[in-house]
Amino acid sequence: MKKTSFALAGLVALGASFSALADQFEDAIQYRKAAFSLFKANLGPMGAMAEGKMPFDKAAFAARAANLEALAKMPWEHFIEGSDMGDTKSKPEVWSKAKDYKVEVDKFEAAATKLAAVAKGGDEKAMKAAFGATAKTCKSCHDGFKNK
Amino acid sequence: MKKTSFALAGLVALGASFSALADQFEDAIQYRKAAFSLFKANLGPMGAMAEGKMPFDKAAFAARAANLEALAKMPWEHFIEGSDMGDTKSKPEVWSKAKDYKVEVDKFEAAATKLAAVAKGGDEKAMKAAFGATAKTCKSCHDGFKNK
Repeated sequence: MKKTSFALAGLVALGASFSALADQFEDAIQYRKAAFSLFKANLGPMGAMAEGKMPFDKAAFAARAANLEALAKMPWEHFIEGSDMGDTKSKPEVWSKAKDYKVEVDKFEAAATKLAAVAKGGDEKAMKAAFGATAKTCKSCHDGFKNK
Repeated sequence: MKKTSFALAGLVALGASFSALADQFEDAIQYRKAAFSLFKANLGPMGAMAEGKMPFDKAAFAARAANLEALAKMPWEHFIEGSDMGDTKSKPEVWSKAKDYKVEVDKFEAAATKLAAVAKGGDEKAMKAAFGATAKTCKSCHDGFKNK
């Protein structure tokens, strides 16, 4: 009887720690998706300005570039081991080719930093070029590490 | 017959613009939730450090405070008119008492800016106090403007 109780208690504890882990993975996925969502909230209007679908507003563009620079470092801490399952579009390569993933991430961060610096300068042509270069790093990373 | 076609075309166009509006409201809600979610991703560990549930790491705390300062200005542009319905916990007062809401938002932004500045200084006691002051502004705003 006592043995059974211990076994049960053990199972309950195991269940609780699985559940805590599951919560942790769910949070991680939610947080990195939140960061990518805010990338889009800022890249969208910059793209529309760059493509002439929206009037080019240098100050607004620069504010969005500054937002993106700050956001650019936020998703990565949430790609924790074990958070490759569930409601995520991450490919397994994020973890199995972690070094290659890091290279892509670094390229994006560098491009976003440059975009924000260029945007401060206020040269419209340079801003559009830096935006294009940043968008390219998004695509390059998605090709290898994100499911459609 | 022609009249009917025009009327139908009109209805289709109306349907399309309703759908575009619905998308816009859904995006707005998603973007502001994303920002709040990243508030939590940074406030959580700062809180755990402030309460001694996690070792106090000054550099990590300061990095999170800097993240929060950058994030602090991101949700508000997404509280657009008409985005008060759907998957949102915003109370109608966000729009009906917009000036009062702005006062709360400004208090939070000021507190987050101060927290980031204090965190750069590296005085643990002051960091904890500035964190507490920031958390208070969250609660104060939620009381009036966020559903449970």
